[in-house]
Amino acid sequence: MDERTALRMLADALPAAGDDAAVVEDLVVTTDMLHETTDFPAGTTRYTAGWRAVGASLSDVAAMGVPAVAAVAAYAAPRFDEGELVDFVRGAQDVAERVDAAYVGGDLDHHEEFTVATTAIGRRGDHDPVLRSGATPGDVVCVTGSLGRSAAGLRAFEAGDPDRGNDLFRFTPRVGAGERLAAHATAMMDSSDGLARSLHQLAEASECGFAVDADRVPLTEELTSTVDAAEAWDLGVYFGEDFELVCTLPERAVDDATAALSDCEVSLTRVGRVVDAESGVTVDDDPLPDRGYTHGSE
Amino acid sequence: MDERTALRMLADALPAAGDDAAVVEDLVVTTDMLHETTDFPAGTTRYTAGWRAVGASLSDVAAMGVPAVAAVAAYAAPRFDEGELVDFVRGAQDVAERVDAAYVGGDLDHHEEFTVATTAIGRRGDHDPVLRSGATPGDVVCVTGSLGRSAAGLRAFEAGDPDRGNDLFRFTPRVGAGERLAAHATAMMDSSDGLARSLHQLAEASECGFAVDADRVPLTEELTSTVDAAEAWDLGVYFGEDFELVCTLPERAVDDATAALSDCEVSLTRVGRVVDAESGVTVDDDPLPDRGYTHGSE
Repeated sequence: MDERTALRMLADALPAAGDDAAVVEDLVVTTDMLHETTDFPAGTTRYTAGWRAVGASLSDVAAMGVPAVAAVAAYAAPRFDEGELVDFVRGAQDVAERVDAAYVGGDLDHHEEFTVATTAIGRRGDHDPVLRSGATPGDVVCVTGSLGRSAAGLRAFEAGDPDRGNDLFRFTPRVGAGERLAAHATAMMDSSDGLARSLHQLAEASECGFAVDADRVPLTEELTSTVDAAEAWDLGVYFGEDFELVCTLPERAVDDATAALSDCEVSLTRVGRVVDAESGVTVDDDPLPDRGYTHGSE
Repeated sequence: MDERTALRMLADALPAAGDDAAVVEDLVVTTDMLHETTDFPAGTTRYTAGWRAVGASLSDVAAMGVPAVAAVAAYAAPRFDEGELVDFVRGAQDVAERVDAAYVGGDLDHHEEFTVATTAIGRRGDHDPVLRSGATPGDVVCVTGSLGRSAAGLRAFEAGDPDRGNDLFRFTPRVGAGERLAAHATAMMDSSDGLARSLHQLAEASECGFAVDADRVPLTEELTSTVDAAEAWDLGVYFGEDFELVCTLPERAVDDATAALSDCEVSLTRVGRVVDAESGVTVDDDPLPDRGYTHGSE
């Protein structure tokens, strides 16, 4: 059973699961496990690992459109080096502070492979949590920021430029943007599985389709400046591991949402429209494959 | 750096950490990572693993004396077997239900070794969270239930009786008892590191000592019926991995607390007194070593 099938099975067994975070009373809760071989390329500092691991869970809170309250992490390594632990904690604290959440520690465990499990908690603010399931044909679909930052980071690590790789691997979770979008969005999730897969997941949850305009998809300059256009598209749309928000909202709300996001210095780009489920997920009228970075098949 | 030194360093760096759970606003949050080689003996079913892993985090919520709200788990294994996953989720759901909390799913990850990271969240009810730091000389120190259940379970696994091992490895987190004790307790923690280490940790946090009466320490009949008295003492007091509560409370409150706990069918046993820090932690006037099951030194 691959990871997607297993996740779907779990979503069926657990009514609160299946979105970016589970909703319990007025809280949202999300947990993630990352480890060295799949998530932290050689050269990733512990500071970046702490930032990125805690940031990934905070991104799931952002995708629910609610304020983040707190995050914890369980840190497992073959041995505990004081400098590494301090760096990890600093990274975790810094990313949490960036979104006004508290990093409040966690657990330590001995493990052959460096492994981090993070949990973040958010709490309903002015708006109900935004689920994946509310997109309606006629809505527009938008993306915050730009795509491909993590792919560019991975390329930098591979090219022997860990400073640049570490910079690109640290991102600001879109918590502020998510809260502002919650006033308008009909459905939302983060882009951690890649834009293509995110759209397919939104399509499945909302029983709709999407028509994307390729030219409108915002690929990060960090990527387009280093690889050709076809590769930039592939990495930006399929690779994932970015932590932008993908959301749908009524046409009439786009200007207000864009203005609200500019307050927190996040851009919002309209990349296409919500269409009927029968039309599927397309880009410039061709099918957009439901393909991405499935951990289970790596 | 061993695990205890590292945990102490983290507690210094993170003011909210260092207790059984971190306190954030009206919430308490705790996370744990367990894995096959150190926490799940051969023969442990996935149902038991789900129960025990989620139960361990719920026990930390219990130790804060507040109601449990929710738990999540990240499940990592070399492959996802549907039956195993379903069993794990059922165990997680059942232990959460036992304490009126919601198990709301989590994350999946591929990992060489079966590893589970769990997080539980509690919320302030009628009383403030009970910390480790409030014990005062003159208080009495009590233990819920009896000690040695996990050691007896491990023995059963080793003796080739996995049914009995699995039974003993599943426990009811003392959430109800913790809530009731919060009305009276001056300090509290769970016994997951063993009674001896728990007392030393309470002594350090509260700047006090303890005088324990050996005869009063409640060792589980599951243990005393299978090993001799000296070994039962060692396993019951030092082995840990039990999830009872160790708390201090004023002498005058003991009867009320005992009556309150009998409502939820949990016994409360007075095992000694809180004394001055200079007197240290003793059992029948001999020093009780600060020794236990330190994961880092296994």
